Amino acid sequence: MTVRIAVDGMGGDKAPEEIVAGAALAAAEYGCEVVVVGSETQLQPLLAVHPELRFHPASEVIAMEDHPAQAVRQKKDSSINVCARLCANGEAAGWCSAGNSGAILAAALFLQGRVKGVERPVLGSIVPTSAGFVYFLDVGANVDSRPEFLVQQAQMGSVYAERMLGRKRPRVALLSNGEEAYKGNALVREVYPRLEKSELNFVGNVEGKDLLAGKADVVVADGFVGNIAIKMMEATAEFLFRTLREELPRSPLGLLGGLLIRGRVGEIRSRIDWREFGGAPLLGIDGVVVVAHGRSDARAVKNAIRVTKEAVEQDLVGKIKEAVNA
Amino acid sequence: MTVRIAVDGMGGDKAPEEIVAGAALAAAEYGCEVVVVGSETQLQPLLAVHPELRFHPASEVIAMEDHPAQAVRQKKDSSINVCARLCANGEAAGWCSAGNSGAILAAALFLQGRVKGVERPVLGSIVPTSAGFVYFLDVGANVDSRPEFLVQQAQMGSVYAERMLGRKRPRVALLSNGEEAYKGNALVREVYPRLEKSELNFVGNVEGKDLLAGKADVVVADGFVGNIAIKMMEATAEFLFRTLREELPRSPLGLLGGLLIRGRVGEIRSRIDWREFGGAPLLGIDGVVVVAHGRSDARAVKNAIRVTKEAVEQDLVGKIKEAVNA
Repeated sequence: MTVRIAVDGMGGDKAPEEIVAGAALAAAEYGCEVVVVGSETQLQPLLAVHPELRFHPASEVIAMEDHPAQAVRQKKDSSINVCARLCANGEAAGWCSAGNSGAILAAALFLQGRVKGVERPVLGSIVPTSAGFVYFLDVGANVDSRPEFLVQQAQMGSVYAERMLGRKRPRVALLSNGEEAYKGNALVREVYPRLEKSELNFVGNVEGKDLLAGKADVVVADGFVGNIAIKMMEATAEFLFRTLREELPRSPLGLLGGLLIRGRVGEIRSRIDWREFGGAPLLGIDGVVVVAHGRSDARAVKNAIRVTKEAVEQDLVGKIKEAVNA
Repeated sequence: MTVRIAVDGMGGDKAPEEIVAGAALAAAEYGCEVVVVGSETQLQPLLAVHPELRFHPASEVIAMEDHPAQAVRQKKDSSINVCARLCANGEAAGWCSAGNSGAILAAALFLQGRVKGVERPVLGSIVPTSAGFVYFLDVGANVDSRPEFLVQQAQMGSVYAERMLGRKRPRVALLSNGEEAYKGNALVREVYPRLEKSELNFVGNVEGKDLLAGKADVVVADGFVGNIAIKMMEATAEFLFRTLREELPRSPLGLLGGLLIRGRVGEIRSRIDWREFGGAPLLGIDGVVVVAHGRSDARAVKNAIRVTKEAVEQDLVGKIKEAVNA
């Protein structure tokens, strides 16, 4: 059976052009049915050349700077709300968006609801490491987490790593300010013994360098901390690549060397590029919802649709339900 | 008058050799009197060739993995405790250590005390940006900060940026998960309006990319969050440089290009290298205490001593006292 995926045609910095282009790539490559949701005037011209894509209208758009929960309540016919509704009604098996991530979460919560037993849905991200990659969560869904949120995150993240990354008995760690068990803030120190006692393969606290060395498969943090950590990684990588690009040409040898390595550096950048991973599902929602990066281009959108399809096929939601209620 | 600085001869991964070497460089370059504190058996052979350096004995050593407060209470004759005591007694004008940073803080607190009116001393770090550098704090002194801690951090950080970095009316920002005023965890949302109402030049919330773009002179965070953020930056930079070093030689062009850019990349690395900044003072202690990186080599130790001397000469402690009690 063909999986039908809804895509928010209006979400992200490069909507709608790159969203439609990515949807077309995904439809061709993964053989899924893609429904592009959004403004008829803006989307129809783009979709005219893509008869393989479906269209579903939504008359409103939630902007990146809109207040998430307010926007979802007020703009009932926004592309984000419509995507969530299509899935709640069973008209699509999953959806993805590069739009306002807070609004995606709010719409998923209001219109699709939580998996029974889950306290708070959570948003993770794939982080490239020297040993492959690690699943890092929460990168922004819940600030001021309670200990039980983090315990469930660890359970859900472990299911994700098993089903979506193919890890057997995933190693779960807490992000902290030191490896020792006594390190951490009050939240981490409270969660540590609970994870130790759990059925999970808990390997203790990790710091940034351990995370990037791939010492765990799943790394858990509060959403405020996780959001800052992931943005710090992105910002540092961009800062360094930009500095190299600007500084190397200032000497003749550097200029020549820079030209010689350009292709290779491009490959390395692309290997550690979030665009390759496309996006990450919101875990704990009663449905498959994938949040893509706000700057997603066609390639990132294509990959986000792939992730959505895989999550549907792997029955990620069902497995999370089992794990949380075990 | 010559400034006398005490240096923990036993602290850090490269003690005692690199500490003594750094002390000798600093004495020669900055014309200050340096007292190296620690084990007589280990230090005397190294100091024999440096008659310009002084020695002060300390029979115990606090290890990097020791529990900070316990170690400071139990190892009363540790090099860290002795340094703090020399300053408390007026036998040195300031001290620095590349040892256990928690123990440095604990010893400074127990033996030198806080500046009157300061709730919690705080540890900052210099972060290189595309526009110079920013002073980022707290990088680990206080986890689970209360709002008033962050307000005082902002005051103390502003004094630091003015006196030590020469900024006029330093721009102060809060590290958050978004720029909008409503973003943040409970702590950040509570501190935001207080900083808005303060005398400080508060410029709002910043994310990682803004921090590295130099959009503020002082960026304030809770110590758990700040510690994770700074370690994430360090880890990302190391990960990228290592990946380039390992990956470039795999193609002939990359190998050649890599050799050509080596010198230039070295310069760039050194410009963004924490070793150049040497260390950062604990702010809020009633005395000058500089925490150097645990991996400090001679160059980093030399720079840590320079920072210590400048903090003494700039009357950093007196200015903080004024700012906090204004």
